[in-house]
Amino acid sequence: MRYNENFNSLPDSYVFAKMNEKVAEMKKSGKEIINLGIGDVKLPLFPVTVEAMKRAAGELSGEKTFKGYMPAEGLTSLREKIAAYYSSSGVKVETDEIFVSDGIKSEIGNILELFGAGAKVLIPEPSYPAYAEANIIYGNEVDFLPTFIQDGFIPSPPYGKIYDIFFLCSPNNPTGAVLSYKDLKAWIDYAISSGAVIIFDGAYSFFTEGGYPKSIYEVSGAKDCAIELRSFSKSFGFTGVRCGYTVIPKRCKNYNSLCRRRLGARFNGVSYITQRGAETFFSSEGQKFAKRRADYYKANAEILKTALKKRGVSSFAGNSSPYVFSKCPEGFTSESFCEKLLVSLGIVATPGNGFGFSGEGYFRLSAFLPREEILKAHDLIANSAFFGL
Amino acid sequence: MRYNENFNSLPDSYVFAKMNEKVAEMKKSGKEIINLGIGDVKLPLFPVTVEAMKRAAGELSGEKTFKGYMPAEGLTSLREKIAAYYSSSGVKVETDEIFVSDGIKSEIGNILELFGAGAKVLIPEPSYPAYAEANIIYGNEVDFLPTFIQDGFIPSPPYGKIYDIFFLCSPNNPTGAVLSYKDLKAWIDYAISSGAVIIFDGAYSFFTEGGYPKSIYEVSGAKDCAIELRSFSKSFGFTGVRCGYTVIPKRCKNYNSLCRRRLGARFNGVSYITQRGAETFFSSEGQKFAKRRADYYKANAEILKTALKKRGVSSFAGNSSPYVFSKCPEGFTSESFCEKLLVSLGIVATPGNGFGFSGEGYFRLSAFLPREEILKAHDLIANSAFFGL
Repeated sequence: MRYNENFNSLPDSYVFAKMNEKVAEMKKSGKEIINLGIGDVKLPLFPVTVEAMKRAAGELSGEKTFKGYMPAEGLTSLREKIAAYYSSSGVKVETDEIFVSDGIKSEIGNILELFGAGAKVLIPEPSYPAYAEANIIYGNEVDFLPTFIQDGFIPSPPYGKIYDIFFLCSPNNPTGAVLSYKDLKAWIDYAISSGAVIIFDGAYSFFTEGGYPKSIYEVSGAKDCAIELRSFSKSFGFTGVRCGYTVIPKRCKNYNSLCRRRLGARFNGVSYITQRGAETFFSSEGQKFAKRRADYYKANAEILKTALKKRGVSSFAGNSSPYVFSKCPEGFTSESFCEKLLVSLGIVATPGNGFGFSGEGYFRLSAFLPREEILKAHDLIANSAFFGL
Repeated sequence: MRYNENFNSLPDSYVFAKMNEKVAEMKKSGKEIINLGIGDVKLPLFPVTVEAMKRAAGELSGEKTFKGYMPAEGLTSLREKIAAYYSSSGVKVETDEIFVSDGIKSEIGNILELFGAGAKVLIPEPSYPAYAEANIIYGNEVDFLPTFIQDGFIPSPPYGKIYDIFFLCSPNNPTGAVLSYKDLKAWIDYAISSGAVIIFDGAYSFFTEGGYPKSIYEVSGAKDCAIELRSFSKSFGFTGVRCGYTVIPKRCKNYNSLCRRRLGARFNGVSYITQRGAETFFSSEGQKFAKRRADYYKANAEILKTALKKRGVSSFAGNSSPYVFSKCPEGFTSESFCEKLLVSLGIVATPGNGFGFSGEGYFRLSAFLPREEILKAHDLIANSAFFGL
């Protein structure tokens, strides 16, 4: 009997799947739970987006307006809007360098097929666990690059070592660390000189505060060595609607044409309704809406940080992030502290070690909930004695 | 520079991508085109489905009704409907044996990750070209099993040879050949005795006429060795909406738990709106609607066969299929005949060799167009002298 033995190298279950099970168990017992665990948005969609999706659905019931197969690379109208969006921040990306995806999580693993199994991959951590898992399942050799709070969780290139792929995420999930122009330039220079490709995860790019690059293509040389992943999930509430996009510059070796060829064989495009909804992100109203949402979630994060500070718990001071990444109080591991938070306060947090070895001793709070629940969490934390103070 | 060299073993472009380009070129020249090439449905969705999707979109704009991440394996409510649907035809499939997908095309390649690269795969042909391409990209060893018109295009197990995976499709695309209980039983017995897994593509199962199994699980032993792929695309007009499902019995080695683990790492589920639309397929009205559509498309196929018969061209007599698979007239190859059809009559057909070597000398007509266009195609073919009669 044949099966993919790489699965044996994974933990028993994906970190968030495991948490969801635990939470479901607690809820059954009738306990009130504030779920600051998984990074899932809880505020509704922009009404204009919903209207666009309803209209698109309506078209599918009309004889003259029905749409069948989508282009595998995405609707031209959506890709043109994405290109114009880049252009408005001074980055020139062509329409045929853009591929619409069903979101970054699928895309992380899909994109690996352009490189072939056995690639040498470097993943800074703490980071989104799907990077490592997708690479392990596919059969790549994964090295981790630990980052530390004293360096602001900023990874530096592994000078002298050769890799095929570097994963970078800015603003980082879970730490909120943001890579500066100088940081990215160092990675780009090293990728070019050592023959590597950077897969740049911009899932949280919309949250980036001024003075830092939102796109890796704002930094010179990136078009020769970087693939950028983007999503509508966190800024536009699309976690359940599923849409993102991937930029592969035509100058980045042969990956643009390989991706196009791969999609021909492997994909039939993203739902028409979803794509029409995604287009509304690029209107000026859509942008204002997304900005309001991002500001709201970042303000939530500040409220959580304040509560923790009252209990003497310091948080990493990222302000371009919807997450709070904090050190567990003395004597706790990531797991034991999250267990304690859950059992004592009914607050779900994600153990930092779920994001890699160097996340041990930390926990992550997600700020995507309505303000009311964030304030409840604030009060529970701020008034709790069990932080040992 | 590293890239996946398996791409070098593929033809330059996916067969349908190439055709789409040619058709776009012809259209530019102002020529009227009847596209019987790609198997893309052209009739609108069931209005009840559209209403369900509009309602689902509406929920996403409400504070209390908003939905974020979907379960990676699909909504429980949808999976329960799928289980009940199987049950109504006497097949017992459990809810946790069902995984909702974004359609069969993606799923063909995704499912290969359960086996790991380097698997030995047998693909009967002519068949859907994505089977071979997904396997080649992933790095599997692909053997083809040619089938011939004198055997009704029915493949027989490769007794004495060992494979990890057999691909079967019934009703077959492009031939329309349907596997009988006895045919499937032979494959199941051989899969079990030789340790192989059958990936059974039921994309066209809704078109199956009485007396033949629609699901491989109607045949004993299948739960120990078979994975079944299903889609809403052809029967319910979902080619642009994107939804399907995969059944992996818990008795089928460890693939059910591997699939669940894979989804945790690799997928964030199918759009909520899409899934709510798919649910309407299982109502009695949805079933009646799908049946009307299938009958309509099959009647279209009969009209096309009649036209060909008038010109002395015989078609393979499948009546469980929305396709017509026919021999090219004397002196033509698949490519030269399709070129001739396009240039002379403005009719797009798919060259049989696009479905494998043993498809050479055949062409496929798709019957998914509105009746009016099918009748136009009928007249063009029936009155054309160029078939050489």
